[in-house]
Amino acid sequence: MSILTKELTFQTRGEVELVDLTEQINGALRETGIEAGIVTIFVPGATGAVTTIEYEPGLLQDLPDALERLFPTGIEYQHELRWHDGNGHSHIRAAFLGPSLTVPFKDRSMLLGTWQQVVFIELDVRRRSRRVILQIVGE
Amino acid sequence: MSILTKELTFQTRGEVELVDLTEQINGALRETGIEAGIVTIFVPGATGAVTTIEYEPGLLQDLPDALERLFPTGIEYQHELRWHDGNGHSHIRAAFLGPSLTVPFKDRSMLLGTWQQVVFIELDVRRRSRRVILQIVGE
Amino acid sequence: MSILTKELTFQTRGEVELVDLTEQINGALRETGIEAGIVTIFVPGATGAVTTIEYEPGLLQDLPDALERLFPTGIEYQHELRWHDGNGHSHIRAAFLGPSLTVPFKDRSMLLGTWQQVVFIELDVRRRSRRVILQIVGE
Repeated sequence: MSILTKELTFQTRGEVELVDLTEQINGALRETGIEAGIVTIFVPGATGAVTTIEYEPGLLQDLPDALERLFPTGIEYQHELRWHDGNGHSHIRAAFLGPSLTVPFKDRSMLLGTWQQVVFIELDVRRRSRRVILQIVGE
Repeated sequence: MSILTKELTFQTRGEVELVDLTEQINGALRETGIEAGIVTIFVPGATGAVTTIEYEPGLLQDLPDALERLFPTGIEYQHELRWHDGNGHSHIRAAFLGPSLTVPFKDRSMLLGTWQQVVFIELDVRRRSRRVILQIVGE
Repeated sequence: MSILTKELTFQTRGEVELVDLTEQINGALRETGIEAGIVTIFVPGATGAVTTIEYEPGLLQDLPDALERLFPTGIEYQHELRWHDGNGHSHIRAAFLGPSLTVPFKDRSMLLGTWQQVVFIELDVRRRSRRVILQIVGE
């Protein structure tokens, strides 16, 4: 049984962008030599999130639409009144969607459904250099 | 320390159905002989989710009501315009609720509260044969 | 590789209160002597949740505001009609936010972002004595 830490780094274009991390995570698993276990995909930051979705153009528009409906950019946020960085809604969206996802893997590959991808969601208002941590526990 | 993979399979009746998995998961833990650890409960698919709730008739109606209020079936989804399978809202609901839940266990039993159950949420519009993966890490 | 269970206990003041658990969790990790791994932070109860957020006064008001907008206290809940404990909305909010968070750690400290804290969210309507379980897997 071992623990291994990997990192993915990538550039985003600002809100709301979905980045498909599936291939990079499976690639990282293949490199480790750990056959089976769990991988915790973690966003070290308060304006990004991870979840799974079918990565197709329709939903890439529907998810941002839902976020705008539920957590509008145009309403007042106390965060904004204090910090003036224009991303109060980003913080709230990230707290709801969550920064952590744990996925089982076997034969060095995540046990996802056929139409299911792991995505990072950029919720911040500007381009960001992002880092996602993969903590792999297995044997 | 070991890793074991188990699967639960069951039939659902379509949206929105909550299936109480608590007893089956605890049963799987008892079979493994692993005393303590974590179990990751994972839905391999993009139109189902897992969470915990008090499994009682009132909330079994309140949760679907909340989903309909936040992610209505009657609005336009780009996913629907492309694929015409009537489940655009199902995908968005699943991405928000999430496909993964990790629960600690001890003495071969999940450390849940007295009024807390682990539920699978069927978000798809039709009957489905469902599979949920249990990845058990412990000793 | 080992597994260790720790518990945090604290008093809350009722809905909606955010309790910053970051220092207590890192303190628990330092005590264990486990250098690296994952910690699963789990709420054994159906009216509390865990997530991460930048713990600053603006967002401490914005998150409760968003919960009230999405899951109002003033609408009818079937849970309430049956049990009359006034917390139907608390249960639904908790099921959406989720009871479990898994965070990677290294050098006995969680790999969080600089402006990111782990918070317990009290969603119940009254003061509660709360218990949060830390299941630590690592080496």
